[in-house]
Amino acid sequence: MIAERLQALRNYMASKNLDAFIIPSTDPHQSEYVADHWKLRAYFSGFTGSAGILVVTQDVAALWTDSRYFLQFEDECKDSEVSLYKQSIPHAPEHVAWLCDSLEKDATIGVDYRQFSKSQIDYILSFTTPKSIKLQNKPHFAKEIWTNRPNLPNFEVSVHPLEFSGETTASKLAKVQTEIQNQEANFYLFSSLDEIAWLFNIRSRDVDFTPLVTSYALVGIEQTILFCNTNRFSENVIAVFEKLNISIKDYDSIATILPEITSGKRIVTDASSLNYACFEAVNGKFIYQNSLVKQLKAVKNEVEIAGSRNCMIKDGVALTKFFIWLEKELATKTISEYKIGRKLDSFRQQQEYYTGESFPAIVGYKGNGAIIHYKAPEENSAEVSNEGILLVDSGAQYKDGTTDITRTVWLGGTPSEKVKTAYTGVLKGYIELDQLQFPEGTTGAQIDAFARVHLWKKGLNYPHGTGHGIGSFGMVHEPAQGFTTGPTTERGTTPHLPNQLTTIEPGCYVANEFGIRTENIVLSKEVNTTDFGTFLGFEALTLCYIDTQLINIEELSNNEKDWLNNYHQLVFDKLSPLLNEDEKQWLQQKCKAI
Amino acid sequence: MIAERLQALRNYMASKNLDAFIIPSTDPHQSEYVADHWKLRAYFSGFTGSAGILVVTQDVAALWTDSRYFLQFEDECKDSEVSLYKQSIPHAPEHVAWLCDSLEKDATIGVDYRQFSKSQIDYILSFTTPKSIKLQNKPHFAKEIWTNRPNLPNFEVSVHPLEFSGETTASKLAKVQTEIQNQEANFYLFSSLDEIAWLFNIRSRDVDFTPLVTSYALVGIEQTILFCNTNRFSENVIAVFEKLNISIKDYDSIATILPEITSGKRIVTDASSLNYACFEAVNGKFIYQNSLVKQLKAVKNEVEIAGSRNCMIKDGVALTKFFIWLEKELATKTISEYKIGRKLDSFRQQQEYYTGESFPAIVGYKGNGAIIHYKAPEENSAEVSNEGILLVDSGAQYKDGTTDITRTVWLGGTPSEKVKTAYTGVLKGYIELDQLQFPEGTTGAQIDAFARVHLWKKGLNYPHGTGHGIGSFGMVHEPAQGFTTGPTTERGTTPHLPNQLTTIEPGCYVANEFGIRTENIVLSKEVNTTDFGTFLGFEALTLCYIDTQLINIEELSNNEKDWLNNYHQLVFDKLSPLLNEDEKQWLQQKCKAI
Repeated sequence: MIAERLQALRNYMASKNLDAFIIPSTDPHQSEYVADHWKLRAYFSGFTGSAGILVVTQDVAALWTDSRYFLQFEDECKDSEVSLYKQSIPHAPEHVAWLCDSLEKDATIGVDYRQFSKSQIDYILSFTTPKSIKLQNKPHFAKEIWTNRPNLPNFEVSVHPLEFSGETTASKLAKVQTEIQNQEANFYLFSSLDEIAWLFNIRSRDVDFTPLVTSYALVGIEQTILFCNTNRFSENVIAVFEKLNISIKDYDSIATILPEITSGKRIVTDASSLNYACFEAVNGKFIYQNSLVKQLKAVKNEVEIAGSRNCMIKDGVALTKFFIWLEKELATKTISEYKIGRKLDSFRQQQEYYTGESFPAIVGYKGNGAIIHYKAPEENSAEVSNEGILLVDSGAQYKDGTTDITRTVWLGGTPSEKVKTAYTGVLKGYIELDQLQFPEGTTGAQIDAFARVHLWKKGLNYPHGTGHGIGSFGMVHEPAQGFTTGPTTERGTTPHLPNQLTTIEPGCYVANEFGIRTENIVLSKEVNTTDFGTFLGFEALTLCYIDTQLINIEELSNNEKDWLNNYHQLVFDKLSPLLNEDEKQWLQQKCKAI
Repeated sequence: MIAERLQALRNYMASKNLDAFIIPSTDPHQSEYVADHWKLRAYFSGFTGSAGILVVTQDVAALWTDSRYFLQFEDECKDSEVSLYKQSIPHAPEHVAWLCDSLEKDATIGVDYRQFSKSQIDYILSFTTPKSIKLQNKPHFAKEIWTNRPNLPNFEVSVHPLEFSGETTASKLAKVQTEIQNQEANFYLFSSLDEIAWLFNIRSRDVDFTPLVTSYALVGIEQTILFCNTNRFSENVIAVFEKLNISIKDYDSIATILPEITSGKRIVTDASSLNYACFEAVNGKFIYQNSLVKQLKAVKNEVEIAGSRNCMIKDGVALTKFFIWLEKELATKTISEYKIGRKLDSFRQQQEYYTGESFPAIVGYKGNGAIIHYKAPEENSAEVSNEGILLVDSGAQYKDGTTDITRTVWLGGTPSEKVKTAYTGVLKGYIELDQLQFPEGTTGAQIDAFARVHLWKKGLNYPHGTGHGIGSFGMVHEPAQGFTTGPTTERGTTPHLPNQLTTIEPGCYVANEFGIRTENIVLSKEVNTTDFGTFLGFEALTLCYIDTQLINIEELSNNEKDWLNNYHQLVFDKLSPLLNEDEKQWLQQKCKAI
């Protein structure tokens, strides 16, 4: 099937005199999860991971992805000609140098400009131009090859109310308009869906896992245009927006409106998110900056933080009921990984404001837990029984917040020293970073290693970053702060600020044996101010017991034991009022002080 | 005096229609310490710190430097019009944006191209070009203003023998030639003096503190040219070099030879070190890469490591005798900081192969210790007595290696809790990083914070990086590895490799009260290889007791006490055979287990 699709693409390339085609995994908004319409990379390669870039020439079909996906790639692409190129840094554009080395002078590469940001095309041009290699925009290439391609989503758009957002659209727009004036500009152009959803307080269900709305936005001082199909809005919403001088125009109309309205104007935008087709459509002068909305959005307001705290209780109750169910069921039978994932979802569905998962739940039994972005197939996933280790990484979208939590539990039998050593190192690493006090201005690359140091001591490590920002009924992986080994990445260079939500999720993976990860969402806050400046720290918001069966207790310091006991007391205190007597007793056992 | 010099420069600028002049602190080789001939920045500003950039317009004289030098700047420039602009990151070119904001369209900036690397000029052009601001090369500007400017140095060049270098010039050149061939090029062009000194195994005394030779080098496959005044070489050296196909041509002749010899050729070079005048003089095509010699040089060979170990014993003996002398003298009188520094030098002079200090010794009493690059003036420096705290940061050039060590000692009286807390936090930080085990590939920005974490817990910190590479009878601050808070800097992004020498030097500074720093040189080495890769660790090479009077012993973990006791045992074992009975007893006291 993949062979046929690649052949169709190669025939198209030959007919257009294209020597290569680059197919990234994104949509025109640089989204992580994309509507089916945009799943081009998966269509042509068979690889369904959320990060990866396909490069096709007449001879080669090569896929670049990072270590989180190596095992998944091998599984999904083993029967096709697609070969794996390992990225040393996630999302690094290492394929560009490779492709320019492979191609002859004066070759032509086909791309859909909408799938690339201005920065990405600039980067590609810095390699292609010296070699006289040309880029050609082929926005309609898929239309001519992909029969039965799904349409773009067109669901109703709902307003995200003030009780969840904590700030009116008028207030948010005013901040953008102030920045436009500071820059002596006329417009601010946005193409990131999460930024637009935050700015206009709108949500929908265009893509799986993320409640966003396919759109662009051009904010002006007097007039703002939201490019999104008008038939998606109720008359009521249209009327409210009109009062804010926001007019709604159809999504595709940006291509004709943008050149006219920007003629001779100054437009602020973020070159790392603006797609290159929009860049070409603008007639005015750009002023580039790190998106203001991205920065504003990363710092949560009091309502969003309260919402997140509430979600953690709901998520904790759902997970507690889930783990009780799992223990009980496994006492008498086996259950497939896939069914376990669906059951977890059903417990979350009972919680208020739940709208769906925030990413594809990872339920990995034994060696499957070592596949970092493992997705149990609906058919023939592993049967889980009452022995060995199970990793469950899952998250939810509630209207009052987004969650993301990983727990690794021991289901029965006698664990090896190897698995206990790794589990203990992961937990110690989590606690180390959770408890860190650090000066304001500290970036993600500077402190990521605190979650690794106890593993390093044992000769262990994990091949992914330690954490990421998270949205508020938004994207589960939100820029810009986080913890990463890549010093020059956005997460590596972005300082942590008070009132941000970030995950801490160290792990340890041994192929074919086990995967371990322990993940909480933490809130950053000021904890100390001295002559040396302001110091920040974290508060764990996620509420779910941490399995103590795999801990080598003698390896924990008193301080680490105190942390764990206090955390478990908090989990019990917050969740037990919402549990029945049996559940309460079960949780009390799990939260027992060590 | 500064006013007159600035006036002369402004008159010159007016006569040449220059609206601004940028005067950095370097020579044509991007050297940290420069010959008097190149001390232009100090001449026109009065600021003598080793890092800083002066920008002069008709209205403003502005100096950019980083936090290490803020107090020194205030002291040296308080009576002049020169104003301080604080760099948030050392050496960051923050002045460029400022200058381009200040200047009108079509303005002209004067520079001496030789003082700027290719990368630096590219960076400046990225700001000036969009605003139609022009750069003008004025290599002779100082000649017309600076009367009595010192000549370029012209001392004899000596060969650095194999017993110290551990690798022949032929072997080193062969590695460069292999790289030239790998790049399908004709030449490799070097302009960093430390790279040339390493590559050709040559040394001299052109600049204070660093035994380098003012030169350029053009390595070819069949013919290599060392651009350095021929009268500086003995006939013997010339003959040896001839056998290696190395011809020596006068330093200034590069300006005429380079355009001819490179015509139509491919030249490998490092754009971050090549000066822009050389860049303009080359007629061929450049291939840019991170300098091969910089990378080779940063990994020490067995002879260099053995030499360094030997230097540490000599340095330790000198420091022990020095601290004994100091304690004895202060019992009955006071001594000035300046004289203390000279006396320390005299103890080092008694050691084999000593050639001089590796940087200006910092002897800072009480509040002067808080001035991070403090230099006690020859006249009227503070009188040190037998009470309070003294910071001594010093280093030596021996023919078998380069040293750099800081110790902070308590001279008498009752220390405050504040100073003990800071001292203990610094020591704990030193031990934390010294003992860290980390995977190969880990960069300086990822682990710098381990030296800070115990200070952070107490709301303390220090405003400089935690350490730097060091040469072998070479530069005391050697690229590329180190420990830094700047994730995107060279030290931040360079992975540590086995067999490198790096300093670990956390500190804590309270203006007008005290400065504390504890610094050793450590050797990186493989300590563990597992399924997760190779892990590196450090071994402290520096041998000198660490004052225990300021340690809050109850704050040390057993592990930290063990480290300190083991280190002190090592110091005593290595140094005592070279001390007399009284000295031995004194050191035994200082190295007593806690």
